[in-house]
Amino acid sequence: MAIYQATTSAPVNIACIKYWGKRDTKLILPTNSSLSVTLDQDHLRSTTTSRADSSFKKDTLWLNGQEEVIKDGGRMATCIAELKRLRKELVEDKDSDAPKLSTFPVHISSFNNFPTAAGLASSASGFAALVSSIATLYALPCDASALSLIARQGSGSACRSLFGGYVAWEQGTSATGEDSYAIQIAPQSHWPDIHALICVVSDDKKGTSSTSGMQRTVETSPLLQHRIKHVVPQRMADISKAILERDFDTFAKITMADSNQFHAVALDTEPPIFYMNDVSKAIIALVVEYNRVAVLKTGKVKAAYTYDAGPNAVIYTPKENVKEIVQLIVKYFPQKEAFKDVFGIFGVQGVQGAVVDGFNEAVAKPFDVGAVKGLIHTKVGDGPRVLGDEEALLGPDGIPKTLA
Amino acid sequence: MAIYQATTSAPVNIACIKYWGKRDTKLILPTNSSLSVTLDQDHLRSTTTSRADSSFKKDTLWLNGQEEVIKDGGRMATCIAELKRLRKELVEDKDSDAPKLSTFPVHISSFNNFPTAAGLASSASGFAALVSSIATLYALPCDASALSLIARQGSGSACRSLFGGYVAWEQGTSATGEDSYAIQIAPQSHWPDIHALICVVSDDKKGTSSTSGMQRTVETSPLLQHRIKHVVPQRMADISKAILERDFDTFAKITMADSNQFHAVALDTEPPIFYMNDVSKAIIALVVEYNRVAVLKTGKVKAAYTYDAGPNAVIYTPKENVKEIVQLIVKYFPQKEAFKDVFGIFGVQGVQGAVVDGFNEAVAKPFDVGAVKGLIHTKVGDGPRVLGDEEALLGPDGIPKTLA
Repeated sequence: MAIYQATTSAPVNIACIKYWGKRDTKLILPTNSSLSVTLDQDHLRSTTTSRADSSFKKDTLWLNGQEEVIKDGGRMATCIAELKRLRKELVEDKDSDAPKLSTFPVHISSFNNFPTAAGLASSASGFAALVSSIATLYALPCDASALSLIARQGSGSACRSLFGGYVAWEQGTSATGEDSYAIQIAPQSHWPDIHALICVVSDDKKGTSSTSGMQRTVETSPLLQHRIKHVVPQRMADISKAILERDFDTFAKITMADSNQFHAVALDTEPPIFYMNDVSKAIIALVVEYNRVAVLKTGKVKAAYTYDAGPNAVIYTPKENVKEIVQLIVKYFPQKEAFKDVFGIFGVQGVQGAVVDGFNEAVAKPFDVGAVKGLIHTKVGDGPRVLGDEEALLGPDGIPKTLA
Repeated sequence: MAIYQATTSAPVNIACIKYWGKRDTKLILPTNSSLSVTLDQDHLRSTTTSRADSSFKKDTLWLNGQEEVIKDGGRMATCIAELKRLRKELVEDKDSDAPKLSTFPVHISSFNNFPTAAGLASSASGFAALVSSIATLYALPCDASALSLIARQGSGSACRSLFGGYVAWEQGTSATGEDSYAIQIAPQSHWPDIHALICVVSDDKKGTSSTSGMQRTVETSPLLQHRIKHVVPQRMADISKAILERDFDTFAKITMADSNQFHAVALDTEPPIFYMNDVSKAIIALVVEYNRVAVLKTGKVKAAYTYDAGPNAVIYTPKENVKEIVQLIVKYFPQKEAFKDVFGIFGVQGVQGAVVDGFNEAVAKPFDVGAVKGLIHTKVGDGPRVLGDEEALLGPDGIPKTLA
């Protein structure tokens, strides 16, 4: 008997123009377009195996080895239902020989290779991996933009993880959402030089979830509407042009300004929402000073910070600056564990904290070990990958191998 | 020989609608109107003695006993020159018997009764005391709004300290600034019940000065213009109405929203400006939770936080709630020194930390002693006071008594 199974992995993405606010909370239609860099799956990824089998009792999902309830009418159920619908309409209705996989329950096992404690949102890579895995299983004749329509309904920012490189999520105007999907502005090969240093910041308070937080902003922030109408459209155009021209200076300035503005409208919310803490702010101060020195020397900035709905910093920079930036961060934020030097920048002697010539060391005070819990060095990467069966997460019996 | 001398004191004010941004940096004309509560001089004040004497060599200023340079063309020199001009035009030119004080050098001694380390801006009370002192010395036939035009050129927010109670600074539209002055919305007697708890927050980094910070915001924040044009005018009207109606719920909500929006536009600045730190944010979380419980019980909030260009919180509340709020703050921010119970709320046993019934204690973590360095309890107060010669800060020789 045939086994219908597919395994894919999908990447994390970190936005430069931030998504914050929905115009439709059920369909997950945003109030503004957004743009992100897809990060390399060699370092951070979600991997999902899907299998359709008529003998399965019901659709079942395991996340990191734990069975999760698929809530009726919930986001997960919506994604699975949409994919089954496309299987039927685009495959089975057109080819009577095609197995009726849309009628079979699916078993889905998904794994993130980064710990939840890292504070990295796994919903984007998770839903992208889920959608690409089932779409592969179903042999859907859909491009990534079409699949992004489905991933979007799982988690808005997941739609951008259907592409590698530099990706826009067009907000669209339709009430039904058919024009609210991801497009690739440029593949990673166009500008492969953009690296990212993720500073995992310790946080002892639970922040406001982005789902509830963004809707509070929509309902109460007087500034959000101005951002949506008068700021984001121009920034989307300008940063897309900067990406096409590989103009890091412009890319970085827009990225930093938009991170700040996202946190500004969060603060303009009733009651106010704070995602950055004193450690986050100190990292900003370091990047600002690092850029000040760079501008004095070359007229251009060398790094861009950005913060999502949490205290972690992501610092984008061309590869040539990564060494300086890691040395800078380590000087102010001593690390418990050795830097994982995946690109072989530092050699055997490891990282020593240091600042560049002309850097004003008084812009921040050194923190204790643990304020920045860890550093992850990665770069722009590709879109979802179809993996071989040897990487499948489901065993022959259709349950996760880790549970077998 | 006659001695021409006057001593006045002037109060601190804390804005509910924030002043942030100048349309004219020399004349100190603001980009938006603002509104503040004048605090009681029984607790916080600047006191200034001015003396005019033909035997003095030059205009001389002592601030807290230290001689300060009066810079040519600077703000201090502008205020003194304006007052001399008014003396000549309004008094000496009209009454030939009036002594020609405008031609005499002045000695000015000013004292703040609160330490600089408290992080309270002393420029508002300081310039208000200076202007009211010299205006008294010169017997100027000017009302407080007219004097506020001069104080404004010393320090923008000083213009509001020329009145007690609830005070608006009308932005004005004239290029010369003659319609940019303070007016009283209501005297303290109209709504004497508004108390203020100042939480002096420890801060180990020097923040951006408000003078340079606000101009960076004017130059770089896309959100500021929206705030100026579309948010502040309505809030000025609404909070003025709330004050006239003694509607604390509305007053508090606008005050908190405007504090948040001021910090939001500071964050929307390039590079971003942060005045609040993790302690400030924890105090906000406590007030938000305290209000949540109050709204559940009564439908109305009981406290309003507001933050100026620094991490200190000022919490406005009707007197009946002060006890609960002090207990709340002290529970999370243990104090080194006993609470200075100037209104006799707690009796001999002093303050014990406590939360109200239904309060979710998990909204913040308790901090160490010193995170909030001190608490100052005060209330809405009156405008500048003319003091007797027994309180003069200058001795018979015309130099500060403390130096004699």
